[in-house]
Amino acid sequence: MKMFHVGVIGLGNRGAWWVNEMLAELDYIHVAGLCDVYEDRLQNTKAQLMKKGRPAPAVLTTDYQALIDAPEVEVVLVFSSWANHHDAAIRALRAKKPVAIEVGGAYSVAECESLVKTQEETGTPFMLLENCCYGEYELMALNMARHGLFGEIVHCAGGYMHDLRGEISRGNETRHYRFHEYLTRNAENYPTHEIGPIAKLLNIGNGNRFVSLVSVASRAAGLHTYIEAHDDLREKYEKTVFRQGDIVNTVLTCADGTTVAITLDTSLPRYYSRGLTVRGTKGMYEEATQSVLLDSETYPGAEWDWSPQFCNRERFLEQWRHPIWQRYRGEGVKEQGHGGMDFLVIDAFFEALDKGLPMPIDVYDAATWMAITALSAQSIAQGSVPVAFPDFTGGHWKTKKEEPVWKYAIG
Amino acid sequence: MKMFHVGVIGLGNRGAWWVNEMLAELDYIHVAGLCDVYEDRLQNTKAQLMKKGRPAPAVLTTDYQALIDAPEVEVVLVFSSWANHHDAAIRALRAKKPVAIEVGGAYSVAECESLVKTQEETGTPFMLLENCCYGEYELMALNMARHGLFGEIVHCAGGYMHDLRGEISRGNETRHYRFHEYLTRNAENYPTHEIGPIAKLLNIGNGNRFVSLVSVASRAAGLHTYIEAHDDLREKYEKTVFRQGDIVNTVLTCADGTTVAITLDTSLPRYYSRGLTVRGTKGMYEEATQSVLLDSETYPGAEWDWSPQFCNRERFLEQWRHPIWQRYRGEGVKEQGHGGMDFLVIDAFFEALDKGLPMPIDVYDAATWMAITALSAQSIAQGSVPVAFPDFTGGHWKTKKEEPVWKYAIG
Repeated sequence: MKMFHVGVIGLGNRGAWWVNEMLAELDYIHVAGLCDVYEDRLQNTKAQLMKKGRPAPAVLTTDYQALIDAPEVEVVLVFSSWANHHDAAIRALRAKKPVAIEVGGAYSVAECESLVKTQEETGTPFMLLENCCYGEYELMALNMARHGLFGEIVHCAGGYMHDLRGEISRGNETRHYRFHEYLTRNAENYPTHEIGPIAKLLNIGNGNRFVSLVSVASRAAGLHTYIEAHDDLREKYEKTVFRQGDIVNTVLTCADGTTVAITLDTSLPRYYSRGLTVRGTKGMYEEATQSVLLDSETYPGAEWDWSPQFCNRERFLEQWRHPIWQRYRGEGVKEQGHGGMDFLVIDAFFEALDKGLPMPIDVYDAATWMAITALSAQSIAQGSVPVAFPDFTGGHWKTKKEEPVWKYAIG
Repeated sequence: MKMFHVGVIGLGNRGAWWVNEMLAELDYIHVAGLCDVYEDRLQNTKAQLMKKGRPAPAVLTTDYQALIDAPEVEVVLVFSSWANHHDAAIRALRAKKPVAIEVGGAYSVAECESLVKTQEETGTPFMLLENCCYGEYELMALNMARHGLFGEIVHCAGGYMHDLRGEISRGNETRHYRFHEYLTRNAENYPTHEIGPIAKLLNIGNGNRFVSLVSVASRAAGLHTYIEAHDDLREKYEKTVFRQGDIVNTVLTCADGTTVAITLDTSLPRYYSRGLTVRGTKGMYEEATQSVLLDSETYPGAEWDWSPQFCNRERFLEQWRHPIWQRYRGEGVKEQGHGGMDFLVIDAFFEALDKGLPMPIDVYDAATWMAITALSAQSIAQGSVPVAFPDFTGGHWKTKKEEPVWKYAIG
């Protein structure tokens, strides 16, 4: 692969990780520029990079327009706060610099529309770095679905189910933006980890699309109880009122009548899960129980007690591992980065750039998945009314073909 | 306990089971009358009863008004089709004969209102036989909640998740009414198994109430695929169009902002589950993984891999088994009847009758839980609009105290 001279915007927890643990390890990446609003982050990230034996970035700036404009930077990666993704991406697109952004929800539908419009006008490559599309089990489920093992898919479910009370409630100190998000909005604020793999599996944007959505939020109590229980937080945040409901249930309906139920669940005690569930007329995959159930296999007695089948997905993996993961396992997995997904997603971006191929997660995918946040906020604010889902493709979803990676095994 | 002379309406699969496997075993029950529209069922059930050494019922009739009016019958049990529960119950109440009905959804809100009104006017004891309120783990979760282990409860979930393709698609032959239900309606058609235990836990009708509901149905494809795959069904039912969506997601909002997500899931391949999930600010119970997670227990590493904790609920059962089950285990469990729940629910009805106590699952519970079906049909028919939830208690929910059995450990 050719060498890419990369500029990075956003060096918080995730951004610094990307630079030092991933980009520094890739021999086709040269980190040419770094940008963050905090000077200390710039210096720390630069120092870490050099400690790894990589050259010092030519550009260090607190102004992301300057980073984008710098002649040393030819590709832009956006790892900043959710609120900044849209503007940074638009500016990179206008500067004709290929850009990839980390995940997050959109603040308005208009923002998603302008992202699409700008990408279409400039023709600049754009990708959403939704790593969970490259999860080993997500891709196994996709592969099994493409081979017809589940029959017709009629329903999927998933969630961002992650106990983030520690991070959110300490946001002011850690400079993490989630704190402010939870003060000011009530929405499905982080939909892409689960909706990405599901949207690919359901051919959203390629023969199918979301037509409507309805969201219901529970009351907010988790963070308050957490703060009450921690001496270091009580005094400071005891009276803080969080708008964000603890659990947000959202159900999307597709053009073909398939439904998708997703859950935001980040401020109550729980174990981590993306809860991927695929329900077809001949079988199911369920992340919660790590299991696969197929009509074509008999499971006597299991109807009433499924627990002996818990974790049986392992035995399906050998046969149904997706080609991406077959190749990756063959080459020796770099487990760092959420079990390899981070490598796969960033590698997919640069590989498409290198070969001049269409982006595997393009601007239409990004606009559609991120819009869920804005639409869910709207639904919740109006008492959980159903909200029509915009078509960002201008009708092209009916005929647009999916990129080969996602349609493996169909044809 | 005194002897109760019982008349039974409905001798299908479930009704015949009740008579011959449960009522015939209870020494305080005398089956004085049987009613079904099919003569063969009357004869078969009677023969089975006699084979068990119980006396022949004095009344055998195809007319349920006649059964209700028979002087030999003092208590009426309704095990007939969903569609018949309301009318049979109303007639029994008017005849001043205590009545208990099997579960099912309502066809209209008006039906629920008239049930409440008739019970209030006649003062006749009425109970809904929701056996799952007496499930051992449902009651453990209730008990743990009452002891504050989960903190404030902000969300619950559950479902009737049962692969009934075999039964539904053969309904015409087996005379099972589900076949017709699936042809004519699209609704959360069987909500009480999951909503009953959740409603008790959330004090619905006793300090809290459901204020709104929204339902989204997937397309219907499961039964068609099943029929296509079975030679004996294909010819007969290949062209049958089912209205009932395969998966119906419903979210209810309570007066206090707590939410409840329930799922109907009966026509796709899956394992059986009622999916009870209780989410509080300090812990959770989850039936899917058969596990309990508490802030007060450390679980290092479990955040990212919960599978070693699968099925850990067993170890909580010894400490948190509900008093009902402590007593029942002490007396020697009759595991028949859904693991003992059927005995407990019918015994609770007759015990309350015997002692002149309020019914543990009363007409307000029944109306509220059953109304979900009618309200969800309305929501779905109008494109998943939110529907206001009627208050069947006339405002008494604010002050009405819960029966001791459900509030154990509160005071």
